[in-house]
Amino acid sequence: MSKVAVLGAGSWGTALSIVLADNGHDVRLWTHRKEQADVINTKHKNENYLDIMIPEQLIAFHDLEEAVDDVSAIVIVVPTKAIRDVCKQLDTILKHKVTIIHASKGIEPESLKRVSQMIGEEMNEYTQEDVVVLSGPSHAEEVGKRQPTTVTVSSKDIKNAELAQDLFFNESFRVYTSPDIVGIELGGALKNIIALGAGISDGLGYGDNAKAALITRGLAEITRLGTSLGANPLTFLGLPGVGDLIVTCTSVHSRNWRAGNLLGKGQKLEEVLDQMGMVVEGVRTTKAANQFALKQQIEMPITNGIYKILFDDMNPRDVVEQLMNRTKKEEMDDLATLLRTNYSK
Amino acid sequence: MSKVAVLGAGSWGTALSIVLADNGHDVRLWTHRKEQADVINTKHKNENYLDIMIPEQLIAFHDLEEAVDDVSAIVIVVPTKAIRDVCKQLDTILKHKVTIIHASKGIEPESLKRVSQMIGEEMNEYTQEDVVVLSGPSHAEEVGKRQPTTVTVSSKDIKNAELAQDLFFNESFRVYTSPDIVGIELGGALKNIIALGAGISDGLGYGDNAKAALITRGLAEITRLGTSLGANPLTFLGLPGVGDLIVTCTSVHSRNWRAGNLLGKGQKLEEVLDQMGMVVEGVRTTKAANQFALKQQIEMPITNGIYKILFDDMNPRDVVEQLMNRTKKEEMDDLATLLRTNYSK
Repeated sequence: MSKVAVLGAGSWGTALSIVLADNGHDVRLWTHRKEQADVINTKHKNENYLDIMIPEQLIAFHDLEEAVDDVSAIVIVVPTKAIRDVCKQLDTILKHKVTIIHASKGIEPESLKRVSQMIGEEMNEYTQEDVVVLSGPSHAEEVGKRQPTTVTVSSKDIKNAELAQDLFFNESFRVYTSPDIVGIELGGALKNIIALGAGISDGLGYGDNAKAALITRGLAEITRLGTSLGANPLTFLGLPGVGDLIVTCTSVHSRNWRAGNLLGKGQKLEEVLDQMGMVVEGVRTTKAANQFALKQQIEMPITNGIYKILFDDMNPRDVVEQLMNRTKKEEMDDLATLLRTNYSK
Repeated sequence: MSKVAVLGAGSWGTALSIVLADNGHDVRLWTHRKEQADVINTKHKNENYLDIMIPEQLIAFHDLEEAVDDVSAIVIVVPTKAIRDVCKQLDTILKHKVTIIHASKGIEPESLKRVSQMIGEEMNEYTQEDVVVLSGPSHAEEVGKRQPTTVTVSSKDIKNAELAQDLFFNESFRVYTSPDIVGIELGGALKNIIALGAGISDGLGYGDNAKAALITRGLAEITRLGTSLGANPLTFLGLPGVGDLIVTCTSVHSRNWRAGNLLGKGQKLEEVLDQMGMVVEGVRTTKAANQFALKQQIEMPITNGIYKILFDDMNPRDVVEQLMNRTKKEEMDDLATLLRTNYSK
């Protein structure tokens, strides 16, 4: 049994806390809002995020120093834009070395940095090599209900990934390891762009055929970007790539899909974000990926189209028509070329 | 404008006929049932299969010789088990060389032959090299409604594929070409096995996380089999592979998914097939793939599990638990190894 702190009491942080509590660990769930911590500790529910009873041994904290006191592992599940701030605080608080795992799915605009890089930069005693990522096709709601789920953990040093695997692994939550942390982090982040697109397609009233084409081409596109940033393209074919893409693009549980769906129905970005009341990571990730693709001349027509809907007020239907009307050509050229060039990384 | 015969008036044959009629071709839709041809010609609907008005210039025939008289292309969309019989008839009827396209998604048990191979064997004036396959993520219902759809055509001689591309291509039905006919045919056929599995998972009450894992591992598994039969593994990452897999595994339109769903809910195979009233290609394909995998010692745990549910009366829940309880290991090993070995084919 280990003492573990989970930072971030959104739906995913709560679900991961439940997995850890099920495995007998002493789990502390941190939120920066005192009233949320109080409700969790009295009602044993986190109603705005996850409609599931929380095991009583899981205690919520709103004081970060208390939450991480004496823990052997910290799981960071705050929104990507809060990562640097939380890590700065941790850096002044932590007095002993712990295992740091993160399960946040985003990248930083401008810098295009992954979460493990941001963590490494903000914490003096840690480098990005110390950090483990946990990612995969995993709606929080289903994890909370102990429905079968598979995820992947990865770190530069495989021993850290194996520590995380041992903490989380159980009968319904299957954890695999991978050596490709770059690919795992980027797969989880970039798939949210395509999920926005899938939601937009559905919101416009297009069918499953159009959405499947969008997802397939989207997979090629994010693999292309990921590879240019050092990911192994094969990672995008596994659970953290195609698996996560499928679950995020085809399920009403997905908040990125839901946001896209509202955009497709004609709402503006601001209205959508107000209405959601949760962080929609795909919006920031689209901006980051589009910036990088333009600068590096990487062909990302879907990402670019979604960027125009989000930030240039372009009509979603016009964007989809532009995407459909690209010229006749051999179907699999792009991804094939990519894999031929990079398969052996 | 061309004169084209479409053989097989199920939902997919009817939808493809509508595309051809939209493109201004003189289309003849053949069915072996006279009463079905009469209803189509009087009501301009094919109600049991597709709830869409059929253009009046599309004429149904029940006499095969009349249907193919003077056509320049024939599109074969009969169930896989009827392919040889229809081709034997065609062989005695056809007096001039035509373009032969097929859009049937299955393989032959025992022989494990693809549809183009069966056609080549049954027709004296044609070899498998003459045949074009058309496949991709395409529910007939959506194609009939002119919703955006992308498919791939392929033939050994690219000129034949381009002829097919020109016949079908229009604003909402986008047709790409590929040189890998083996991969295109096998992708379309083998994905039905995984669609049965996805339906079983949903029928058992498992969630999207479990289904995404099943689809991801299923993709690796059918890619492995396809490659051993000479397909280019990269084909499985494009529209006729992952695209078709997504559309078939996540949509209630899919009859293979529906059959699996009823199996997951506890019905026996015979009851399910009686209730469906349509051919469920995945059942025969599972038998064929499982036979071959055992003989060639190709690891296909999902296919083998589905075979046991279909033909050995094994409890679906026990099969899923066996699949979930495979040992911890690196996630992407199998597909990665496969692609490293075969990427350059």
